[in-house]
Amino acid sequence: MTFRAIADEAGVSIATVSRVVNGSTRVSEGTQRAVREAAQRLGSGFARTRGGAPPVLVYCPYALTDYFGTIVTSVVETLALHGRRALVLAGESAQDDTSALLALPEQHGIAGAVLVLPPGSTHDLEALHARRYPLVVVDPRAELPETVASVSAAHAAGARRVTRHLLGLGHRRIGFIGGPGDWLASRNRLVGHTAALGETGLLPDPALMAGITEPTTHEGHTAARLLLSRTPRPTALVAFNDKTAAGAIRAAREAGLTVPGDLSVTGFDDSELGQSITPALTTVRQPLEEMGRMAVSLLVRLVAGHAVDTLHVELATPLVVRDSTAPPPACRV
Amino acid sequence: MTFRAIADEAGVSIATVSRVVNGSTRVSEGTQRAVREAAQRLGSGFARTRGGAPPVLVYCPYALTDYFGTIVTSVVETLALHGRRALVLAGESAQDDTSALLALPEQHGIAGAVLVLPPGSTHDLEALHARRYPLVVVDPRAELPETVASVSAAHAAGARRVTRHLLGLGHRRIGFIGGPGDWLASRNRLVGHTAALGETGLLPDPALMAGITEPTTHEGHTAARLLLSRTPRPTALVAFNDKTAAGAIRAAREAGLTVPGDLSVTGFDDSELGQSITPALTTVRQPLEEMGRMAVSLLVRLVAGHAVDTLHVELATPLVVRDSTAPPPACRV
Repeated sequence: MTFRAIADEAGVSIATVSRVVNGSTRVSEGTQRAVREAAQRLGSGFARTRGGAPPVLVYCPYALTDYFGTIVTSVVETLALHGRRALVLAGESAQDDTSALLALPEQHGIAGAVLVLPPGSTHDLEALHARRYPLVVVDPRAELPETVASVSAAHAAGARRVTRHLLGLGHRRIGFIGGPGDWLASRNRLVGHTAALGETGLLPDPALMAGITEPTTHEGHTAARLLLSRTPRPTALVAFNDKTAAGAIRAAREAGLTVPGDLSVTGFDDSELGQSITPALTTVRQPLEEMGRMAVSLLVRLVAGHAVDTLHVELATPLVVRDSTAPPPACRV
Repeated sequence: MTFRAIADEAGVSIATVSRVVNGSTRVSEGTQRAVREAAQRLGSGFARTRGGAPPVLVYCPYALTDYFGTIVTSVVETLALHGRRALVLAGESAQDDTSALLALPEQHGIAGAVLVLPPGSTHDLEALHARRYPLVVVDPRAELPETVASVSAAHAAGARRVTRHLLGLGHRRIGFIGGPGDWLASRNRLVGHTAALGETGLLPDPALMAGITEPTTHEGHTAARLLLSRTPRPTALVAFNDKTAAGAIRAAREAGLTVPGDLSVTGFDDSELGQSITPALTTVRQPLEEMGRMAVSLLVRLVAGHAVDTLHVELATPLVVRDSTAPPPACRV
């Protein structure tokens, strides 16, 4: 199924079909529906390929739950829309396979790959890339070679935004639960946090920093307990993600503090968890579905040999204000 | 990579390798590790297949988050261990493809399929099955033909267990938030709940029943509000799953009730959400990873033409008691 066929069927331009496929918001709801219905009438890409187009490898060596599952679902759905099948290699056990990735193109006749990479796999990636194999890295954990295409979220901008939100509410003692030390995202978020503090004339206070090695509720709970033991106590905690924020809220409750009355807590991701807990989390939205769509869009262009100028795409990370943040106790009447 | 090769490498029997691959708990930790390390030394199944063995279709027309993502990850990992690649068709958009499933074996040279099916796809399934195509349905939403292999959780037994837990704590007015009406799981859980009540000499009270159409936090919140408006108020709520339980806890807080002090709330699934919220949920564990492993195990036997006597496998659903249940207020000193 080509874009031209869908465009003809829907009575729109090829550019419009491309925009819908790429998830652009500049297309009206009605047109989006028309394009989707046309694509369905023509039969899904997956059913239509008749084993013709070689499949695309989707490599994600993590459990496909909230975060990675949303990315991979979006990648698989978008590939189907492009008439490509997805060979999926996922789960923690696939981490043993990073070097095996090198053997994949020849062995399985794969057209290209969308990769989520664990830290420390840059070497294998470079070897794969050196063989001119089309690939796109989603959410890179480490700095990538300039010439490797990638899609990530704007971590620094998102972190700056959430700390500015807390500063704007009047908070001055803000605890920071940083992410795993070897993740690019952790470093970039600290940059954003520090920038926001600096703009208000504050320097980061080491006593208000705590680190985690894995972004889990349990580690968030431990880090928050540490930060809440400081004197004077912080009036807000910036957590690395929604899970660590959930752990921080538990620590606050155990310390007899209400959220957000006594303590504001923020997350990062805008996961279902953050929306489900009470209070619902103020957080930073990671555009996970759009990351998947954009990765496929880049890959399809690389496979087709089209020009791709901007290889490192960063997607915006808006602040989502919910119920877990409020002015600090001292600021209220 | 064959079981024999791994057995030789690890110095154990083929039956032991089979047990480890099938996730049996009857094998010691040390032996499990030895088998896993041997399998790794021999190279992962995925890397080894050299495009030889035809891939297995994994069809899951839902977003791969907590619930379905965990099942699909386990299926993909277990297939790799069996030297099979996974062609994954996932996401809501794949629901339009149930009839396209019929065309898949011929088009893509697929060896067999592990399917998660939306309600209403029984007809397509029967057509596919009539062509003697090896397939296993995971977590069926509707009654399946006798001859179609399936793996599901013991819904009725789990529901009976959690209601008995509440009855044992002294609760007598137990609100029940039932699942979507067209799901097999919903009907079976109501059976278990009703059985537990009956064993204690109680009949189900229609005023304590509320239904949802989708298992979301939002619908759980709405259903719980309705049940909490009854007079006398229930002292416990049995929610359809962890997400609806999270919504029920929010409704309780809004009504000024503490959980579990004033109201006990239970979930179902034992998801990460249920472990992350405060209070951590008393829930029923669904063995999602084991469902994935068992499905692949059945499929591999069907593909090989081995005897398979028990086509409908039901896996145990243990009760996990955490912090969201306690005796009702009247029972405490």
